[in-house]
Amino acid sequence: MDLIAYKDRIQLQLMTVLDQVEAPTPLIDAMRYGVFNGGKRIRPALVYLGCEALDTRLEKADIPASAIELIHAYSLIHDDLPAMDDDDIRRGKPTCHIKYGEATAILAGDALQALAFEILARDEQLEPETRIRLISELSKASGATGMVAGQAIDLASENTRINALILENMHRRKTGDLINACLTFAVILSNAGTEVADIFQQYGDSLGLAFQIRDDILDVTGVASSIGKPVGSDIENDKSTFVSLYGLEGAKEKLDLLLQEADSILLPLGEKAQPLQKIAQFVANRTH
Amino acid sequence: MDLIAYKDRIQLQLMTVLDQVEAPTPLIDAMRYGVFNGGKRIRPALVYLGCEALDTRLEKADIPASAIELIHAYSLIHDDLPAMDDDDIRRGKPTCHIKYGEATAILAGDALQALAFEILARDEQLEPETRIRLISELSKASGATGMVAGQAIDLASENTRINALILENMHRRKTGDLINACLTFAVILSNAGTEVADIFQQYGDSLGLAFQIRDDILDVTGVASSIGKPVGSDIENDKSTFVSLYGLEGAKEKLDLLLQEADSILLPLGEKAQPLQKIAQFVANRTH
Repeated sequence: MDLIAYKDRIQLQLMTVLDQVEAPTPLIDAMRYGVFNGGKRIRPALVYLGCEALDTRLEKADIPASAIELIHAYSLIHDDLPAMDDDDIRRGKPTCHIKYGEATAILAGDALQALAFEILARDEQLEPETRIRLISELSKASGATGMVAGQAIDLASENTRINALILENMHRRKTGDLINACLTFAVILSNAGTEVADIFQQYGDSLGLAFQIRDDILDVTGVASSIGKPVGSDIENDKSTFVSLYGLEGAKEKLDLLLQEADSILLPLGEKAQPLQKIAQFVANRTH
Repeated sequence: MDLIAYKDRIQLQLMTVLDQVEAPTPLIDAMRYGVFNGGKRIRPALVYLGCEALDTRLEKADIPASAIELIHAYSLIHDDLPAMDDDDIRRGKPTCHIKYGEATAILAGDALQALAFEILARDEQLEPETRIRLISELSKASGATGMVAGQAIDLASENTRINALILENMHRRKTGDLINACLTFAVILSNAGTEVADIFQQYGDSLGLAFQIRDDILDVTGVASSIGKPVGSDIENDKSTFVSLYGLEGAKEKLDLLLQEADSILLPLGEKAQPLQKIAQFVANRTH
């Protein structure tokens, strides 16, 4: 099963989830718009791949993977707001607040967050204990000590030079914690032990960082039509990036190192970890 | 135990909850500011009173009541934003975005929502099954078919005349669903049967509506220093209210009727429902 198949699978799941929400318009339209935004669905793919690596039926991962993607979608809607990153375009399309207005965009984000926890709580395929572990993990990874903290640090460091340590910490929280949550979800769904959990977490750490470095490189070398936003927008916004810190060549070297590291981390899991490595390869090759 | 004692109890709980969050400044400051906002803590009191009426230890209600208040606090922060109700003052103090800026206020709201579900998921006093029921109830009541829907309908009906049915539906979702969730929390924590659940829900319906009518009346007859915002702000914002629909006397009559109804709903529960009636009395008498 390749990444496209996972993407199709999660699209269907997300459609089913949103079809069951009887919310007023334009709220529900804005929620859909935020979720079906042309995203790559890397996070759900990670949950599925993690489950495959641990011999767990993909059906068990459908709702958990959807919940993570709902959280990701809400965070993009809020991050794009005028008071935050003030982005008008995402993946070549108007951002949610441009299309539906700021108030509706804020509410759509709020509602998507609630929906993520609601579908986890109601996923009757899973034992209550399992659902509790997933909700606990996701709320922590996405909240004040995780993703939201990362965005807060990011905003605070605009127009200031920050060092590599602060930059890495910011990204670890802003994107890394949710990426790690995907792998932890697979561990929880598979009832895997601490050894696997540790390996998955290390893999997630390398992957998350590699992903961000690739992003920073693409901001300099990418093609606008392909990355869906103007090239060089980080420089224009005077953002510290891995490229501004290490230079383009330095950033590329660091990326290669991380991807090699990611591969070697998985070695102890042998053959069955093959599927997961697809994601590292995808990060290495992606052009948007 | 009177309402002040419940308020003191929940203040302490919320302080403990927030002290355990290791979030960066100013995010955590804005979260605290939004939570310790001089609110009346009616929702936690409802959870506690419901538990008292059903002979359930108040200790079991501490985290669930906190979670509901965190959701309420997040909703106030987001509702006050410039893109939403654009309020600078709440309860006589600058609103969260005036004090900390819009971006931090949005993030503080987001983080408080995640925290509500996190503390519920981690409340080891309660069985996993109980936690799941609470999370399921709270996410539904606060999300796209509940509180957020109410706010969306409210925004959509600004500067338009709406009828009593739409006005009631809007309030039922915007404030009623969370008030009902408080009573449902007590039912869940007490493992009460459907008969009690039905009575509680009817009581919550009357109470929520009475609460809102009292609000609309106070907007006309209140004292600014006491209600913490300018008198007549609904009229100024051209909002449909129960007073604009029924007139001041008509609204007062409807309020009295609802409060009588609320009292009689509880009759089948006998003596032990006494504590709960305090809230209806409080709504009847409140001046802010």
